[in-house]
Amino acid sequence: MSSVSTPISKTKQAKNIETGPLTVDELRRIDAYWRACNYLSAGMLYLQKNPLLREPLKAEHIKNRLLGHWGSDPGQSFTWVHLNRLIKKYDLNLIYLSGPGHGAPATLSNCYLEGVYSEVYPDKSDDEEGMQRFMKHFSFPGGIGSHCTPETPGSIHEGGELGYSLSHGFGAAFDNPDLIVAVVVGDGEAETGPLATSWHSNKFLNPVRDGAVLPVLHLNGYKIANPTVLARIPPEELEWMFKGYGWNPYVVEGDDPAVMHQLMAEVAEKCVLEIREIQKKARAAKAGTTLERPRWPMIILRSPKGWTGPKELDGHKVEGFWRAHQIPILDPKTNPAHLKLVEKWLRSYKPEELFDEKGKLIAELKELAPVGRRRITANPHANGGLLRKPLDLPDFREYAVKVENPGQIEVSSTDTLAHFLRDVMRNNMTNFRVFGPDETASNKLQEIYQASKKTWMSKILPEDADGTEIAPDGRVMEMLSEHTLEGWFEGYVLTGRHGFFSSYEAFVHIIDSMFNQHAKWLEKSKLELRWRAPISSINLLITSLVWRQDHNGFTHQDPGFLDVVANKSPHVTRIYLPPDANCLLSVGAHCLRSTNYVNVIVADKALHLQYLDMDSAVRHCTKGIGIWDWASTDAGEEPDVVMACAGDIPTSEALAAVAILRERCTDLKIRFVNVVDLFRLMPETEHPHGLSDSEFDSLFTKDKPVIFNFHAYASLIHKFTYRRTNHDNIHVRGYKEQGNINTPLELAILNQVDRFNLAIDVIDRVPRLQATAAHTKQWLQDQIIDSVNYAHENGIDREEITGWKWPD
Amino acid sequence: MSSVSTPISKTKQAKNIETGPLTVDELRRIDAYWRACNYLSAGMLYLQKNPLLREPLKAEHIKNRLLGHWGSDPGQSFTWVHLNRLIKKYDLNLIYLSGPGHGAPATLSNCYLEGVYSEVYPDKSDDEEGMQRFMKHFSFPGGIGSHCTPETPGSIHEGGELGYSLSHGFGAAFDNPDLIVAVVVGDGEAETGPLATSWHSNKFLNPVRDGAVLPVLHLNGYKIANPTVLARIPPEELEWMFKGYGWNPYVVEGDDPAVMHQLMAEVAEKCVLEIREIQKKARAAKAGTTLERPRWPMIILRSPKGWTGPKELDGHKVEGFWRAHQIPILDPKTNPAHLKLVEKWLRSYKPEELFDEKGKLIAELKELAPVGRRRITANPHANGGLLRKPLDLPDFREYAVKVENPGQIEVSSTDTLAHFLRDVMRNNMTNFRVFGPDETASNKLQEIYQASKKTWMSKILPEDADGTEIAPDGRVMEMLSEHTLEGWFEGYVLTGRHGFFSSYEAFVHIIDSMFNQHAKWLEKSKLELRWRAPISSINLLITSLVWRQDHNGFTHQDPGFLDVVANKSPHVTRIYLPPDANCLLSVGAHCLRSTNYVNVIVADKALHLQYLDMDSAVRHCTKGIGIWDWASTDAGEEPDVVMACAGDIPTSEALAAVAILRERCTDLKIRFVNVVDLFRLMPETEHPHGLSDSEFDSLFTKDKPVIFNFHAYASLIHKFTYRRTNHDNIHVRGYKEQGNINTPLELAILNQVDRFNLAIDVIDRVPRLQATAAHTKQWLQDQIIDSVNYAHENGIDREEITGWKWPD
Repeated sequence: MSSVSTPISKTKQAKNIETGPLTVDELRRIDAYWRACNYLSAGMLYLQKNPLLREPLKAEHIKNRLLGHWGSDPGQSFTWVHLNRLIKKYDLNLIYLSGPGHGAPATLSNCYLEGVYSEVYPDKSDDEEGMQRFMKHFSFPGGIGSHCTPETPGSIHEGGELGYSLSHGFGAAFDNPDLIVAVVVGDGEAETGPLATSWHSNKFLNPVRDGAVLPVLHLNGYKIANPTVLARIPPEELEWMFKGYGWNPYVVEGDDPAVMHQLMAEVAEKCVLEIREIQKKARAAKAGTTLERPRWPMIILRSPKGWTGPKELDGHKVEGFWRAHQIPILDPKTNPAHLKLVEKWLRSYKPEELFDEKGKLIAELKELAPVGRRRITANPHANGGLLRKPLDLPDFREYAVKVENPGQIEVSSTDTLAHFLRDVMRNNMTNFRVFGPDETASNKLQEIYQASKKTWMSKILPEDADGTEIAPDGRVMEMLSEHTLEGWFEGYVLTGRHGFFSSYEAFVHIIDSMFNQHAKWLEKSKLELRWRAPISSINLLITSLVWRQDHNGFTHQDPGFLDVVANKSPHVTRIYLPPDANCLLSVGAHCLRSTNYVNVIVADKALHLQYLDMDSAVRHCTKGIGIWDWASTDAGEEPDVVMACAGDIPTSEALAAVAILRERCTDLKIRFVNVVDLFRLMPETEHPHGLSDSEFDSLFTKDKPVIFNFHAYASLIHKFTYRRTNHDNIHVRGYKEQGNINTPLELAILNQVDRFNLAIDVIDRVPRLQATAAHTKQWLQDQIIDSVNYAHENGIDREEITGWKWPD
Repeated sequence: MSSVSTPISKTKQAKNIETGPLTVDELRRIDAYWRACNYLSAGMLYLQKNPLLREPLKAEHIKNRLLGHWGSDPGQSFTWVHLNRLIKKYDLNLIYLSGPGHGAPATLSNCYLEGVYSEVYPDKSDDEEGMQRFMKHFSFPGGIGSHCTPETPGSIHEGGELGYSLSHGFGAAFDNPDLIVAVVVGDGEAETGPLATSWHSNKFLNPVRDGAVLPVLHLNGYKIANPTVLARIPPEELEWMFKGYGWNPYVVEGDDPAVMHQLMAEVAEKCVLEIREIQKKARAAKAGTTLERPRWPMIILRSPKGWTGPKELDGHKVEGFWRAHQIPILDPKTNPAHLKLVEKWLRSYKPEELFDEKGKLIAELKELAPVGRRRITANPHANGGLLRKPLDLPDFREYAVKVENPGQIEVSSTDTLAHFLRDVMRNNMTNFRVFGPDETASNKLQEIYQASKKTWMSKILPEDADGTEIAPDGRVMEMLSEHTLEGWFEGYVLTGRHGFFSSYEAFVHIIDSMFNQHAKWLEKSKLELRWRAPISSINLLITSLVWRQDHNGFTHQDPGFLDVVANKSPHVTRIYLPPDANCLLSVGAHCLRSTNYVNVIVADKALHLQYLDMDSAVRHCTKGIGIWDWASTDAGEEPDVVMACAGDIPTSEALAAVAILRERCTDLKIRFVNVVDLFRLMPETEHPHGLSDSEFDSLFTKDKPVIFNFHAYASLIHKFTYRRTNHDNIHVRGYKEQGNINTPLELAILNQVDRFNLAIDVIDRVPRLQATAAHTKQWLQDQIIDSVNYAHENGIDREEITGWKWPD
């Protein structure tokens, strides 16, 4: 018989408490377990010594600097202990995502109580000494992060930046029919745009093949210093909103722990049973039955911020107010009265009832946690690399474009890739998905629909049969929210699966910040955490490029995502600019095999000339950078000039410039260099793909002019090459924010990445041409004027341009 | 008596049609006006000649390349003509924002019919020839953009990137009590995160002092190639959702023009009357009466995509389907049967009834449009610079921190600025707002609340009196959505007002794409459109910087927004890194006076040493870059080394490094250079603020080592300086993605921007020190190890560091 106390209901709702669903004994124990969580959470904020309060609390026991967040910890732990009960009762396979990631003490304390923290970090052992280290090192220099960082066992969602918890949760649930993903959404986070639209993810979850997401909207009422929007709207609006979003919301509201335990036990169990019922019904339906979108349950938990903490401090309300957001009492080290208050608060959890003399959770509480891999923080879905199986990839060479001679035929690179992706999909119908914001077809990837349509759980109309390509069992994810797609994708790979995302180039900036956060997660996981198994890479195909925005104009012209990518760790970032379809195939297959990267692939969707046969493409992409002999005229000698390029459209213009120069400046020795793997340009000391200086010099020479035609902003090339011997001679052309409604050639001309301007660049930089090629230069200048005039008169480019082929 | 026809109701809802609210004659005319809009819209997609179809349509009349969007045009024009009716009837002051900006033909055709297009662009005259040019040049190289670009009179929202129409609309309505902002939200756009949360803007609109936003959710059912989420949820969910968001939704649904006109006339009028009633009641209430958040009306317009266009093509459904999104019939130039279909479609609008022999809209239709500045496209609120009044600014010098000697006292720069902003607010209580995502106080700007609290139209609880600082008439805008705040701010300045936004540095990346779009808007407006009067700058204070994320850790460390900014036009971007509070005051006041920029100011909120008295600060900020003689030891001679810095924390570490070197390498000649205006580093040919090479050389020498301690990623400095004479000797330190929970010094050390590493950098680069300073270098290395050890043991930095002052 244990000694933990039964909570006493302030509100005397004895009937409610006694009628269950929890027995008095269950209630007593579940509350005690929760007190253990709260005790640890509060202890993490304050204590560097005396972790079990075996002696009176003294100033020296308090950390020198108090950093951390208390506000959402008790509500999150409250949710957690009730999930634990259901995991045990129904043998659930369940993971937990903490939207208010700042409330990491809740996750950490549960992880510690489940024994997982000590298993992963043996110095934080399951005893008094371990508990002391665990508390002291929380939010401490060189110690445990104050969010659910990658270092946190059981976490796949850090919550440092707000907005992505629910989309991450759905990503985890897709194709995991057995899994329940509990997602606590903070009411602060709920105000963000990404979160607000991600409630609609329920229209994309198929109850037959996918798992379930159980959102718990944690309305604790306050952000750092403000009330939250959702906490102050009338209850009926709140209910309408979530019913409008397609959910079935259950409210658990109050502040009396005993009553709340009974309410939560009842509601959470009801939700689990509803989920099971929905799944059972959907899965039992005969093939051919129309699958209707279910109304999934969710919980609205309205509990006080900083629940069970100090009610007030020096006359200021704390519990149930924004003052409970971070450290409720800031100066116990220097203010003896406040030290007393902290002690009283910590002792209110009665640690002496909860932990034995060694500092271990007492046995009758320990029993409440699931065991083994059912423990939330030990669930392998939260360390997805453990479950990851490599894709069954068809041989990408079989999708090759037949290229007999370079620059003769035009093909859409993305369409070519789509045939490969279609069969990747066919071979991997349970662990591969394709993502894109309503643009899979617009980006010429629609061949994928032959393998699988777009996921659609809403109404399907008769006319949809004619090309809409939607179905409940579709595996192509389209919604007009880059945030939601990226969130789904991240959740999907973090739980051990694979995917491919295509986006309009300009609008991939919408997910800059998500990219940053995922790259940071990967960097820590990959470089510092051996226990995290590698996960699949995020593969981002950037298409509908700046150079082909003929009718969208200026707003759709922004190739700057590469600059954002280049700021992150070289250990987790890759940028590829395949010049043609076969190179895209080679790069694409490589990326799908890789782990722990964000791979960014830049390739246009329009028809473009093809240069390399498959073998050459593989060789070229393997090297990542190389001289194209067939386009060069230096015959292996030291050239007069290097024409370099990266990106499909810049490559084709650079080649056209070379063709002009070959014809008109016949003795000019040009070396043609194409770059696929952009990081090859960086010094080898800065990036694992970087070329050594001698390799770089052997391509770009030590002193000859280099004209570099680049897909994106020119400065990125300078950033990568400023330390190189020949940097002073590298002249880069790229996008310079010039454009509107333009033909392709006109847009290129405006930004001087076109064939004529490039040829002029060469003439201007090779001294001996300045005398001999004056006539050619004049001709080139005339071509520029004629081209623009023609476009402005006819709305299209001249046929010499649109029908241009490599002359060989 | 005119000859325009009355629409015939297919559904024979004669009663509805005849009972109004429109009379048969009104109905006949409003429908005819709408047909004129639709005729022009369709004509813009196709015609380069024969604009009035005075002769049979031939292939040569069709443009060579067909580019544009038809889908949402008719529904948008439908809305517009009904708004026109109400503007006239109630003398409304109303502007229109087109969320589905791709449907620009709707706005453009109305602009043309209102006569405004011809006034602004006289070559697009109000006659047949002008109409021909208007049609031909739409979505044509060098011509009229296919979105509601800055070139579009009446537009303040391009809609090229989706998601911001509603937040722009609210920004326009704030502090414009007389204005109604009609915002058409596309159902595609409605799926984005930013749009999904911006419906909550109604909690921040005060009916007494603000105008009204009338959203029209245009459910035309489809995006490019998909149904939309909101069009396929059950009607009751749709209604719940918007009631949940706090709106009062009215549905106008159907496809029969005659019936729809009556429905829309009735509903739109009801909405306007409701708005007036809400405003009247709120404005008549006695002072002291609690102002309750009203339930504002909105319209859900469910009309077919591509309404009135071709029903089908070659057996494929077009009207009411995604195939109507762009050009419904793609090949009329080469397919004679399809040419016939286009002609039949265009003629279905009966242009001969609508335009007179000169090509002018007939008088009885012209009458339907408002006149003068009441015309939507001539409303001055959509050219906000016309209405803009400069701020009444107090003298920023009066808020100066008293600095007698540099580096002796510590002050929070943002707190100092806040006192100035407080009085800016007090002086400008109708045209200045401050924006921040729940972080105004966290960013130490809370002094502003003394002038005005945070806007809050929801419930206020008794405890809020204790420091929550919320009130219905507050002017500080806080919501946990950077998207919504930036959207409000943009809408506010685009309509002629002023503002100031503060954000956590790492999370300003959330609005990268919004920044890009606004910068593009500004660039076109400023450089190419004389008729657009200058608007106030967007002022972004980036604070809670990377170097002080002691407890937030790695996720909160990202200074890369500056790289995004530097990619945009130098004509509209400015970056300032004031090193101390007086410099921040000088920069802040300058930014508030400026127009047509995005000003980015980087300044930390924590206590930092102060260096310059007010006069020196003004001089320093005016130059933007300069030598600090008091910190230098070169006595005006050629130095041994230049210590340069940009950013408050890097400046303080650089000074501390100099202090160490002055003491330990007594004969070393150090020049100390501080950069406030980052673009001073760029070549003068690249940026209007750029230094000439000789100016640059005079600061940084031609050949001496330069140690540059930079706030953000080091590569940005190389990007700006790679063309400078001495670039090879410029050694930059900056953030390199190293960090977690760290003390300030430890984090600096990890990234080598700390005093000790900087001093080592100097020793390593000044040849003669390598022999003489070996002992000092060892001491510095020991300091680094000791510092980290101390932090890991004590959780704080050593007092030598935290209490450090400049020794003079």
